[in-house]
Amino acid sequence: MQIEIDGGRLVSEIEELSGYSDAEPPAVTRVVFGPSDKMARGWLASLCHEAKLAVREDAVGNLFARWAGMRPELPAVGTGSHIDAIPYAGKFDGTVGVLGGLEAIRALQRSGFRPQRSIELLLFTSEEPTRFGIGCFGSRLLSGTLSDSADEGFKDAEGRTLRELRTAAGYSGSLAEVRLSDSYYDAFVELHIEQGQLLEKEAIPIGVVTQIAAPAGMRISVEGEGGHAGAVLMDDRKDAFCAAAEIVLAVERSARSTGARDTCGTVGKCQIYPGAVNSIPSRVLLEVDVRDTDEARRNDVLREIENACEQIAGKRGVAVKVELVNADPPAQCSGKIISTVIESADELGLSYKKMVSRAYHDSLFMARIAPTGMIFIPCRKGISHRPDEYASPESIGKGTHLLASALAKLASA
Amino acid sequence: MQIEIDGGRLVSEIEELSGYSDAEPPAVTRVVFGPSDKMARGWLASLCHEAKLAVREDAVGNLFARWAGMRPELPAVGTGSHIDAIPYAGKFDGTVGVLGGLEAIRALQRSGFRPQRSIELLLFTSEEPTRFGIGCFGSRLLSGTLSDSADEGFKDAEGRTLRELRTAAGYSGSLAEVRLSDSYYDAFVELHIEQGQLLEKEAIPIGVVTQIAAPAGMRISVEGEGGHAGAVLMDDRKDAFCAAAEIVLAVERSARSTGARDTCGTVGKCQIYPGAVNSIPSRVLLEVDVRDTDEARRNDVLREIENACEQIAGKRGVAVKVELVNADPPAQCSGKIISTVIESADELGLSYKKMVSRAYHDSLFMARIAPTGMIFIPCRKGISHRPDEYASPESIGKGTHLLASALAKLASA
Repeated sequence: MQIEIDGGRLVSEIEELSGYSDAEPPAVTRVVFGPSDKMARGWLASLCHEAKLAVREDAVGNLFARWAGMRPELPAVGTGSHIDAIPYAGKFDGTVGVLGGLEAIRALQRSGFRPQRSIELLLFTSEEPTRFGIGCFGSRLLSGTLSDSADEGFKDAEGRTLRELRTAAGYSGSLAEVRLSDSYYDAFVELHIEQGQLLEKEAIPIGVVTQIAAPAGMRISVEGEGGHAGAVLMDDRKDAFCAAAEIVLAVERSARSTGARDTCGTVGKCQIYPGAVNSIPSRVLLEVDVRDTDEARRNDVLREIENACEQIAGKRGVAVKVELVNADPPAQCSGKIISTVIESADELGLSYKKMVSRAYHDSLFMARIAPTGMIFIPCRKGISHRPDEYASPESIGKGTHLLASALAKLASA
Repeated sequence: MQIEIDGGRLVSEIEELSGYSDAEPPAVTRVVFGPSDKMARGWLASLCHEAKLAVREDAVGNLFARWAGMRPELPAVGTGSHIDAIPYAGKFDGTVGVLGGLEAIRALQRSGFRPQRSIELLLFTSEEPTRFGIGCFGSRLLSGTLSDSADEGFKDAEGRTLRELRTAAGYSGSLAEVRLSDSYYDAFVELHIEQGQLLEKEAIPIGVVTQIAAPAGMRISVEGEGGHAGAVLMDDRKDAFCAAAEIVLAVERSARSTGARDTCGTVGKCQIYPGAVNSIPSRVLLEVDVRDTDEARRNDVLREIENACEQIAGKRGVAVKVELVNADPPAQCSGKIISTVIESADELGLSYKKMVSRAYHDSLFMARIAPTGMIFIPCRKGISHRPDEYASPESIGKGTHLLASALAKLASA
């Protein structure tokens, strides 16, 4: 069996997908259930139909495109990723795994290969936390990690519930039915850009992921006292933004204090009320992201941040409320998939590196219900979530080739 | 001559004016040239017509309502303030001086008084910096402090120019003609709530302002490097928000470092890009307000903030740009007006305190073209720019009575 990837078509599809965006090129903004997300989904579904895949969507818009195997009653082999993009992001995060997964299936079809197990492409809804403040929304639901009350419990910044938004986007039905059974997939493999620079620095084309870092999200609200910026003396102030500034620095300090390179702490969002230049901030909301490959170490950082918040609140006479939005355990990749990917890489003459994913992927949740693995490809300077994110056609082609080969082995088992 | 203030009517007019707002009561939001501002102006003009005042508006919407004196050729006596309100503000800032000024004129009319000089109520356009990022827009233009190119030079957050906005609001004509001649007013007196708690603490009904603090505004932009919140290691980061947090604390520290109670430093606005929870902030914009009654001391604070920005930029490898938006000199109130107000207070049996205004008023600019003074009344706990801002009917009545008496003396001179 000779697998040939149509790299030119794949790269031009990645380019075409980047046009479904709410930002000026080269930036990409594609928020789940927004108009550009809807259009991109429609376009992708038409590509899947063209490849003669059977397409279905679940109640939150996770899209499944299945190439039926000769033994369709067996648990399938899945691959896929996401196409939503945070504001002012790039073209490759997630999309390489979706369009690369599709091209891997098409390449296997062209090669004459006939799978025993069905091979299924999966497009996850809302991997990015932009709209609901929590990442991997679709895969959390697929793996039963979110409760069925998510429909009312999750709202976007405009106060619209998940139920309203998914209904408006054309997705109906019970959230309870989104959950996949543990025997749905026999294997799941996600192709993704590294979002770090280890592969590039060592000039290695393939990363074989062994473990996915454990992310946690916090919302911190600071309640101080507003007032006129000229009239309230410095000694009489309870400035919520000064307290928040100390919290931001405490997050940075706490993440650094572990001494481990895999610990990251970030404050990516901040809202100030009332938000006028001549008004003392009365209230500030911060959104914090803390990650580590080691769950206990990450939880220590969370506790340290909470302690710092308490201290700052006491010192400044403001009220600080810390809410843990999510704190997921890290995932171990499946030994079977790791060895299959390595076997394929050896056959294709691709050098590889076993590595940890410090970024956060739908595979983290898929690992709860299926043997799961990930294939990383290099991206320039490790840059991601920025308009200048870049993976070369050569890298994308090699990763897709490897994915196709591994899918073929897994679907034959 | 017996002056009688109709306090009930005045208080109910202040209440009615607070209804022209874009916020839920008791909060008031009234942004210049917005729909609630337009409606409030129309309502106020109708009250002025009812009082038989001659109403005119200039090219930026400063509104003049004149009670012609027996010698209309003489420079007039002016009074007034503003009605625009920052987001989630209260009912009394500015409005007491506008509606109190109108009631003072009506009370003088009812008393049978006939002024020698014309008495004119002035409604200033955009005292608050909400829309254009700079305060006292109208009075800056009236006093020739802004250049005629302001029409294109000032834009709101949506990028609309002053020219577009004022044209859409119905104000046309050249900005150059807004400037009042130095002989337009023989005196200008503004009634205002204190926005501090000195009067309340000492239970004194009247503040006679001798000096107005010198405000300065800065815009600080921090340019770092974005990236994925999980994948970019802490050591490799140039997080713009961590740098901005240090700047916020430097502003606070610099303002405190003078040891003078009148120095205030505030960061009231902050915008983060891209503003996603899992994305390292690449760019942050801060708006800073620094005030003092002593110009040299305030300028020292500005320099200290700039130095801190430079240090932080160097230490963190980010680019920090500091732009001075405005740095106005403080104003001295007119000795003639101070003594007239004091004489009237003595006649009315009102105790008073000479004081400095640490807040920022249109009178700061009127003092450049006319002998200017201010009358302060207490407000509860010194709270201002908040929905719970409050001045009692009794305080408002006393201040308005004193204003009427002083206007009568000034218009007879």
